[in-house]
Amino acid sequence: MSIAIKNAELIGEEWKKDVLIEDGEIKSISQSEEGEKTIDAEGKYLSPGFFNTHTHAAMTLFRGVADDRDFWDAWPNIVWPLEENLTEEDVYWGTKLACLEMIKTGTVAFNDMYFSMESALDAVEEMGMKAVLSYGLIDQGDPEKLEQEKEATKRFVRYAEDSELVEAAVGPHSVYTVSEEGLQWSADFANKKNLLVHTHLAETKKERDDFKEEHEVSFTEYLDEFGLLNERTVVAHCVWLEAKDYELLSNQGAFVSHNPSSNMKLGVGKPMNYEAMKDQGVKVTLATDGCVSNNNLDMLEEAKTAALQQKMSGDATLLNASEVYEMLTEKGAEAMGIDSGRIEEGAPADLILIRKDVKAMPDHYPKSNLIYSMSGSSVTDVMIDGNMVMRDREVEDEKKIMKNADERAKDLVSRVK
Amino acid sequence: MSIAIKNAELIGEEWKKDVLIEDGEIKSISQSEEGEKTIDAEGKYLSPGFFNTHTHAAMTLFRGVADDRDFWDAWPNIVWPLEENLTEEDVYWGTKLACLEMIKTGTVAFNDMYFSMESALDAVEEMGMKAVLSYGLIDQGDPEKLEQEKEATKRFVRYAEDSELVEAAVGPHSVYTVSEEGLQWSADFANKKNLLVHTHLAETKKERDDFKEEHEVSFTEYLDEFGLLNERTVVAHCVWLEAKDYELLSNQGAFVSHNPSSNMKLGVGKPMNYEAMKDQGVKVTLATDGCVSNNNLDMLEEAKTAALQQKMSGDATLLNASEVYEMLTEKGAEAMGIDSGRIEEGAPADLILIRKDVKAMPDHYPKSNLIYSMSGSSVTDVMIDGNMVMRDREVEDEKKIMKNADERAKDLVSRVK
Repeated sequence: MSIAIKNAELIGEEWKKDVLIEDGEIKSISQSEEGEKTIDAEGKYLSPGFFNTHTHAAMTLFRGVADDRDFWDAWPNIVWPLEENLTEEDVYWGTKLACLEMIKTGTVAFNDMYFSMESALDAVEEMGMKAVLSYGLIDQGDPEKLEQEKEATKRFVRYAEDSELVEAAVGPHSVYTVSEEGLQWSADFANKKNLLVHTHLAETKKERDDFKEEHEVSFTEYLDEFGLLNERTVVAHCVWLEAKDYELLSNQGAFVSHNPSSNMKLGVGKPMNYEAMKDQGVKVTLATDGCVSNNNLDMLEEAKTAALQQKMSGDATLLNASEVYEMLTEKGAEAMGIDSGRIEEGAPADLILIRKDVKAMPDHYPKSNLIYSMSGSSVTDVMIDGNMVMRDREVEDEKKIMKNADERAKDLVSRVK
Repeated sequence: MSIAIKNAELIGEEWKKDVLIEDGEIKSISQSEEGEKTIDAEGKYLSPGFFNTHTHAAMTLFRGVADDRDFWDAWPNIVWPLEENLTEEDVYWGTKLACLEMIKTGTVAFNDMYFSMESALDAVEEMGMKAVLSYGLIDQGDPEKLEQEKEATKRFVRYAEDSELVEAAVGPHSVYTVSEEGLQWSADFANKKNLLVHTHLAETKKERDDFKEEHEVSFTEYLDEFGLLNERTVVAHCVWLEAKDYELLSNQGAFVSHNPSSNMKLGVGKPMNYEAMKDQGVKVTLATDGCVSNNNLDMLEEAKTAALQQKMSGDATLLNASEVYEMLTEKGAEAMGIDSGRIEEGAPADLILIRKDVKAMPDHYPKSNLIYSMSGSSVTDVMIDGNMVMRDREVEDEKKIMKNADERAKDLVSRVK
């Protein structure tokens, strides 16, 4: 079925046009298009949907359980005990809740790392979202555990093979939770299967200090030794890096996933050095992280926080609205290996409509209003591969998803107490 | 008319009760109340509305015109030329737009400093909000200008005398824009008329450096010399203070208005030292500042930013959700001399209802969800002195206000170009 989006005002452009969607793609853009179905976008902006390059979707279940605590207090004492008790059913409903929230705030695709990823994949497909999903491989130096983790990774990769919306990736959790053998296997397996790699790096000062005690090389040199640093890798956080790391990230073409709210809330100690990355030409994308560290998945809120966080130390010109918008859209898509995030003929119809509400007035500069004033709640419609997953802020089954996820979450927390 | 709010779940409490509103006040709270009118709050939280202790409401007209620039670039080159061309009609519509946005995001009262305050007052009263309004007195050391500014201040104070919703305050703009004579007159006039004082202090490093060159005393010692530092004063920003300032702010009982988004966006160089203020017992409240520096008036967004900003430097326990919530409500009201901001019998009915939407699920900790996950768009109903100014997210005349403010803003910008 073809859909004509009429009177669409494109964020960042000075035109108002019609956009015709056919077979999941943007078929044509002109002054007048007609489709079998019509969506009147009068009073709304059209934008590519947003790409969240690092999250743990099912952690929506834990929203608010570990506020106002340091990472090294919150995770060992609260998060890990909860995760040990997670069931597949929990992950399914947590991922459904996350997808609902992401759709409601304009995100069309996300890069996820967690457990029970078969359940997560089922949830993502049902919600009609795009995702790159990776099983979080953690062996803690235990060869037996590594064998189990390799099996879990391989099992999920097979499970995802036929999915049209989901790509499997390899997810070695971090350099402090995965052995050298585990990192090497991850690199080799990703290479053999041509999969993306998703990992955490240099998030906290403790991680950096511990690493420095054990290794002569820098963080990125270490990853690179295993062949884990290339244009098929998304590295999350990257706060505690040094000068040569930015150069290596750039030379190898790896993507950085910046998580400003998470970094601030967990008190990691300083902002990620965006200026150094920009100077070196590192490809930086944006992400919310999971809902313990944020506590939501709203990419427009994250966009503002990213810009504000960089400016705080004294240079208000750093990370402007256009750069942030590019991270939200085209750069994010590129990091996830998805050829999308832009509005042009032939591109996938991964599109959103955004209401010009009170926070969008006056509309001197729509892109400024989007990044600095509005939040995800202004998004009214979300289309993924041409399918409407939200229409006039209504998503299928949303009440049921909220109720079931809430029940699972409370049951889980009560089991662990 | 009496209104019964049924099944209200109070933020931060474990009960669900009915609240009876009569004569603008909370008459009683119990398991079952009946009124002439009923509001079913099932599925919503009840909270005191929010108190924004520092803004320049009519600057909504300039939303987005000076992004990604340093304060000392944006203000002299963009903001001041626009302000020189502001008409009373502009201020009226800009203030209407600001009130609309504040109501839509749960704010019931605000502390404002700007020009053409008679027009601002008319706008505030029409919107049914509470406000403390001050004419921004700026003499730049010119005795003739000071006489005009004194007259403007006195005229506005007379204009506000009969208002039930608005209190006039005295607004010496800052120590760098007002002469010693101007500061002394402001203190004496406020004292004589028993008015609040609203001023800016220690916002940028340049302001601090310039001040240090001219004065032996500290910022707050200087204000105190004029009698401008007491429990009737709201001091905005307070970023570049030193140890003795925190002690003096505390001893004199002055209120600090913290503006984290504005401070970050304008690159003032570091976060306000909340920890030092807390240690000294300084009364800290929260504010959005105007829409050039933020760019919205959403106090829930500001709440999250405040907590995140403080935690970033390394202590994730600093400024927890309960402290921020107190700033939003009771502390903010106290700073503005309004006996409100809490839910108990006899308190003014300045109340909001907040929808438990996807960002509020699961609801392990409602207060955490409110501060760290939700934004102002989850507010559905706003009551001020018992009058419903928003019902089911509908505010009277909102389309007209948005249209007129947008037209005035574009006309103004085109006049100045």
